[in-house]
Amino acid sequence: MIDVALGLDVGGTKTLGLLVARDGRVLGEAHRATPHVHCEGSGAATAQVLAALTRELCSTQDIDPQKIAIGIGLPGLMRSDGRLAFAPNLRSESGADIGTELGSQLMNASIFSDNDANCAALCEHEWGAARGLDDFVMVTLGTGIGGGIFADGRLVRGRSGFAGEIGHMVVQARGAPCLCGGFGCWERYVSGGGLQRLTREAAVEGRLPTLVAQRGGATLVRGEDVTEAARENLAEAVALVREIGWWLALGMANLAAILDCGHFVVGGGLSAASDLVLPAARDYLDDLVEGSVARPVITLTPSMFGPRSGAMGAALVAMERAK
Amino acid sequence: MIDVALGLDVGGTKTLGLLVARDGRVLGEAHRATPHVHCEGSGAATAQVLAALTRELCSTQDIDPQKIAIGIGLPGLMRSDGRLAFAPNLRSESGADIGTELGSQLMNASIFSDNDANCAALCEHEWGAARGLDDFVMVTLGTGIGGGIFADGRLVRGRSGFAGEIGHMVVQARGAPCLCGGFGCWERYVSGGGLQRLTREAAVEGRLPTLVAQRGGATLVRGEDVTEAARENLAEAVALVREIGWWLALGMANLAAILDCGHFVVGGGLSAASDLVLPAARDYLDDLVEGSVARPVITLTPSMFGPRSGAMGAALVAMERAK
Repeated sequence: MIDVALGLDVGGTKTLGLLVARDGRVLGEAHRATPHVHCEGSGAATAQVLAALTRELCSTQDIDPQKIAIGIGLPGLMRSDGRLAFAPNLRSESGADIGTELGSQLMNASIFSDNDANCAALCEHEWGAARGLDDFVMVTLGTGIGGGIFADGRLVRGRSGFAGEIGHMVVQARGAPCLCGGFGCWERYVSGGGLQRLTREAAVEGRLPTLVAQRGGATLVRGEDVTEAARENLAEAVALVREIGWWLALGMANLAAILDCGHFVVGGGLSAASDLVLPAARDYLDDLVEGSVARPVITLTPSMFGPRSGAMGAALVAMERAK
Repeated sequence: MIDVALGLDVGGTKTLGLLVARDGRVLGEAHRATPHVHCEGSGAATAQVLAALTRELCSTQDIDPQKIAIGIGLPGLMRSDGRLAFAPNLRSESGADIGTELGSQLMNASIFSDNDANCAALCEHEWGAARGLDDFVMVTLGTGIGGGIFADGRLVRGRSGFAGEIGHMVVQARGAPCLCGGFGCWERYVSGGGLQRLTREAAVEGRLPTLVAQRGGATLVRGEDVTEAARENLAEAVALVREIGWWLALGMANLAAILDCGHFVVGGGLSAASDLVLPAARDYLDDLVEGSVARPVITLTPSMFGPRSGAMGAALVAMERAK
């Protein structure tokens, strides 16, 4: 087994690189903005950023960037050949083979790609909040919602390796339009994008009068304003955060009915707000799960590594596949 | 391995018993109405009916009802100890241990219970439309919707054995009230109960004028009237059937996003109408699945054994557990 690997997590907004030891210790960290080039399919710009991150991190530990095993976590439908088949929140990369691009830039053959939320689930199962759990769902709240599903002790991959696209489960038929082309997807009501959308809607409908007055207009209130104000107990902000908690619980209730998962681990870039949203979701969950009186309690915990679990899991994937 | 077993499928409306050979041949069939006794938890009335079915079927083949392996398929949350923990469409049996009741009535120790849709999935995987498929979902349309999920070649059981409650996935937040206590569950828009509800709604809203006139009132039009009229190409009935097909496709699209299942097998008591509903669902499915252009085609087939697959699968469960 390899002792150290590099994990790269390409998010809709930013890209994180971590040097990770076999026992889960993080030896180095660096990040960059994710490039959004308006020409589809190449992946070259992203690969350049990943190459720069790799060189930077390797130089700190005197590691040869051609020889280290590298894992890349990517959002969306990852084919088993490493190509990103479809990425609603990273449109410019749909169809790209970022792993191969990076490999040719670094002259490194040990590069492995996987879905970012699958990486996060594998990380939490190996080192974090899901250790020893056979049936859990990793929910990553970022620009969208990603998912990694463990059932009966194994990560569910599905026919083409696309399983876990829980953010595109429709919870409101003919509801809010989604970047995937659909309507009413779960991630339109939770996630960073969902928070933004619900905030805008509430501001326009007059449900955030204090924040609208503070920011100087309904269209100027941001999701962060709501979470900050909720921390200061502003009632209108608390109400909106509880609404998001309700939507989070609704999707979890669906997954619990379908999979009988006993645990949810919530991570991703938005997990900094999880201390606000998770208690609200917890309050609503029992009411929303079919037959909850007949079920053991469903636990709902924040990820142990927050926004780092995707990159840590990508490193784990590299360690396991390169061994 | 046992050569012959008895499968009993307790539905919300009727109960079917089948004598099944190891190769899937059905050697005998009998049915009864499912009793609905208005006192919760005993299961005694149901067990009596099952005992009568067992004796009837065994007598035709000169089999000792004390010695044959018996499988029972039950709707709802089945605990691994055989107790029915929660059954929205069979309320009187919630909490019942029908297997033990039947065992004591027949003096037979080889009785095994499982969820009815899990039984159907196992049956179709062993003998029917899902042979050789690793990733599929069995969708049983009856009084409600049941589900059996195969992922990566194995039936997904979940933490307590409750996985597959796909009918209680919410597809319309704060939607139609469901027998489970929730709102907007998938089975409220598809299934026998869903057909009835949508029919009533359409009739009252004036979307079924011909059928309302024929039956003599909006509240008198039944689901069967709609499917019969759709077969005769009455436009208002065809439109309603297509609406049900759209809802069926919506839930399937959710399951495909979550599980990346490549196949759906549709069975259950309502599957007699599947020649009407499945083509409509097929038409809508690609539009509703996230990233469908990037996915291999999702197939959607009727179950090979229709309303028999639950009882056949229950017999299979008995054969495998008694061996």
